Amino acid sequence: MNAHDRYANLEVGYDIPAKPGMDEADIQTPCLILDLDALERNITKMGDYAKAHGMRHRVHGKMHKSVDVAKLQEKLGGAVGVCCQKVSEAEVFVRGGIKDVLVSNQVRDPLKIDRLAQLPKLGSRIIVCVDDIANVTDLSAAAVRHGTELEVFIEIDCGAGRCGVTTTEAVVAIAKAVDAAPGLKFTGIQAYQGAMQHMDKYEDRKAKLDTAIAMVKDAVEGLRAAGLEPELVSGGGTGSYYFESNSGVYNELQCGSYAFMDADYGRILDKDGHRIDQGEWENAFFILTQVMSHVKADKAVCDAGLKAQSVDSGLPVVYGRTDVKYIKCSDEHGVIEDPAGVLKVGDKLKLVPGHCDPTANVHDWYVGVRGGKVEVVWPVSARGRAY
Amino acid sequence: MNAHDRYANLEVGYDIPAKPGMDEADIQTPCLILDLDALERNITKMGDYAKAHGMRHRVHGKMHKSVDVAKLQEKLGGAVGVCCQKVSEAEVFVRGGIKDVLVSNQVRDPLKIDRLAQLPKLGSRIIVCVDDIANVTDLSAAAVRHGTELEVFIEIDCGAGRCGVTTTEAVVAIAKAVDAAPGLKFTGIQAYQGAMQHMDKYEDRKAKLDTAIAMVKDAVEGLRAAGLEPELVSGGGTGSYYFESNSGVYNELQCGSYAFMDADYGRILDKDGHRIDQGEWENAFFILTQVMSHVKADKAVCDAGLKAQSVDSGLPVVYGRTDVKYIKCSDEHGVIEDPAGVLKVGDKLKLVPGHCDPTANVHDWYVGVRGGKVEVVWPVSARGRAY
Repeated sequence: MNAHDRYANLEVGYDIPAKPGMDEADIQTPCLILDLDALERNITKMGDYAKAHGMRHRVHGKMHKSVDVAKLQEKLGGAVGVCCQKVSEAEVFVRGGIKDVLVSNQVRDPLKIDRLAQLPKLGSRIIVCVDDIANVTDLSAAAVRHGTELEVFIEIDCGAGRCGVTTTEAVVAIAKAVDAAPGLKFTGIQAYQGAMQHMDKYEDRKAKLDTAIAMVKDAVEGLRAAGLEPELVSGGGTGSYYFESNSGVYNELQCGSYAFMDADYGRILDKDGHRIDQGEWENAFFILTQVMSHVKADKAVCDAGLKAQSVDSGLPVVYGRTDVKYIKCSDEHGVIEDPAGVLKVGDKLKLVPGHCDPTANVHDWYVGVRGGKVEVVWPVSARGRAY
Repeated sequence: MNAHDRYANLEVGYDIPAKPGMDEADIQTPCLILDLDALERNITKMGDYAKAHGMRHRVHGKMHKSVDVAKLQEKLGGAVGVCCQKVSEAEVFVRGGIKDVLVSNQVRDPLKIDRLAQLPKLGSRIIVCVDDIANVTDLSAAAVRHGTELEVFIEIDCGAGRCGVTTTEAVVAIAKAVDAAPGLKFTGIQAYQGAMQHMDKYEDRKAKLDTAIAMVKDAVEGLRAAGLEPELVSGGGTGSYYFESNSGVYNELQCGSYAFMDADYGRILDKDGHRIDQGEWENAFFILTQVMSHVKADKAVCDAGLKAQSVDSGLPVVYGRTDVKYIKCSDEHGVIEDPAGVLKVGDKLKLVPGHCDPTANVHDWYVGVRGGKVEVVWPVSARGRAY
C-alpha cells in the first residue's frame, strides 16, 4: 500500500463521497458540501463590491485550497488572482493556471526559496512577502540562478503580532534592498490585520483598522520620499474589507472566508449590529454528517468528529435547526443533543464548521450541490500542502 | 489540476518532506517525524506486556492510520491485527495485508454496509460492532448477498456516553439476533471506556474501570446463561490497559496512543504519580517545524499552525526545551515565546502535538528517523478516510 493507490479506485464510497449527477441524498458521509448557489452569490457580491470601490481582489486561496473555487472567483468575482501562505500551495495554484499568485508569508528555507524562484517559469506572476533584510539576498540569488523575477511585498505587522516589521524605517530599508537586488522587484506592501477580523463589534474592528491604516499611510509616504512608489498595497479580510476599501491607501483586498462562511466568522456583527451570516454573507460550506447511533433517547451520535473538522474556533453548528445541538466532539464521533428525540439513525445533518480553513484541509473533496443534485466534485487541490 | 496530479512529482519539498538516506537536518517542514528507536521500544514494551498477561493486542489503527506502523506492531509487538473506526480505514488495512480487522464502531449506512460485507473476500477476518438490533438484519442481508461472513461484537457503553447499549438484557437480545442471522457470527463484546483514558489520576481511572468491568462481567454471565460464550472481550486504552488485563474478563486490548504518545496523554499519571511520558512510554511522534520570522525580539514565528496539527486537546509542547514555549496557533503559524531570544530564523524544533490521532490525519507522510538519518518515509495510508 502506498499513497499512489489512494486514487486507484474512484468509486463512490471508496475514494470519493459522490459523483456528479447523483441525488444529494446519496452522498456518503462525512464530507464537505458546497451550496453552489450560495457560493456563487457570495463570490459575485464581493466581486461587485471590489469593482465598485476600485479595488483589486486577490482572493485568499489558503482558505479553500481549491483551484476550481479560485477559478470561479476569477470568473464570477473578477478576482485578479490568489494569495496563499505556503510555497507548496503556490505550486498547486500556478500549475492549476492561476496567473497572479502572492505568497502572503515569509519564505526562508533554502529549498523553499529555490522552489519559489522556479515558479515564474510556468507563466505566473509570483509575489512574496519579506520582513527581514537578511531574506533579500537569498531570494535574489535564487531568482538570478533560475533567470526569473520575484516580486516583493514588504510585510507590515499592523496589529496581528506575528510576522512583519513595525516601523516605516524598516519598511523603507528593506524596500531599498529589494529595489537594488538583481532578480527582485519591489512591488508593494502586505498589511493584513488578522487579529481583529473576528472581534464581534464593528466599532472595535474599526478602531484596530484605523491604527493599521495610519501605519500603512506612514509607510507609503516614507517609501514615496525614498522614490519607491508601491504599485500594490494589499490586505483586508472578511471582517474588515470595507475599512481598507475606503482607506485611500490600500488598492488590493485579500478576503477568503466570505465565500464559504463559518460559525466563528458568522457571529461577528456588521455596522448595524447584525450577524454577518444573516444578510451580508450566506453559509455555502457544510460538513454533511449522518446519525449512526441513537441508543440514548436524548442523544444522537453522528459520524463527523475531529477527523472531519477543526474545532479550534469552537464546535460546529447544526444548520437550520434549533431543536438539536452538536455538543461534543471526539475523533470520529459527534454527540448531538436531541432532547425531543426527533433524530433517527440514518438522518443527515448539515454542520456549519467553527473554522472553514483548517476544516477544508482535512478533506480530499468538495461536493458541489444545486437543486438536490450533485453538480460537481472538486478536489481540495492543495490539501495538506503546508510546506 | 486534479487529485491524481498530487503524486505526479515525488521530489523532496514538492510532494514529500524527505527521502530515505538524507540527513535529518534536510527534512522539509512542517512534517511528521517518527523517532524509530523510541517507536520500536514502545511497541515492543506493550507487546511484551500483553504477552505476559495472556492478552491479545489488537492495536488501534485509527490512531496512526498507517499500514506500515500496523505491520511493525505485528512484527515487534505481536499484535493480532488492528481495530479502526471507519469502513474506509478497514478497506485500507485489509488491502495493506492486515488479516484481522475490527471496525470498533457502528456501520449503518447501506452503502457502507455493502462495502464492509465485501471485505472478507480479500482474505481478512472482519468484525464490526452493533448496538442496535435493527442493524442486524442489514448486516446479515449484505453478508448473504456477498457470500461472506461478518463477525459481530455487541458494543457496551461502559461509561463513555456515546455508542453502545447499557444493559445486559440488551447485550443478550442483540447477541441472540446475531447468532440467528445468516452470514453473521456472534464473536464477543466491545467495551472501551474512552471517557476515562485522559483522567489525570490513576485512582480516578481505576474507579471508572471498576464500574466498566462490573458491567462487562455481568454481560458475559448473561451471555453464558443464554448459551452464547463470547470468544473475545475487547477494550482498553493507553490510560487503562492494566485494568482490563487484570480483570479476568477481557482477553483483548485495543491500545493506540502508547506507540506515539502525545502531550495530552503524556500528562496523565501512573500509579506512582509519574507522568506516563516520563518512563512508561516515550515520545516517538513529533511535528518538525522551523522558525520563519523573528522580527520581535521575544517571539519567534514557526511554520506549523492549525493545518499541521489539531489543537483540540491543547497546544503542542516544544520537545526537550524549557527556554521556549509554543503559545499561539493560527492557520499556518505558531508563535513561540522566546524570552531570551535564543532562536533564530531557520532553527528547527520538534513539537509534541496535543493529540496524536487528528494530528496524524492532516499529514500525508511519516518521516522515520534514526541516528540523524531519514530511514523510511511512510504514507499516512488511511489519511482522510473518515467515511
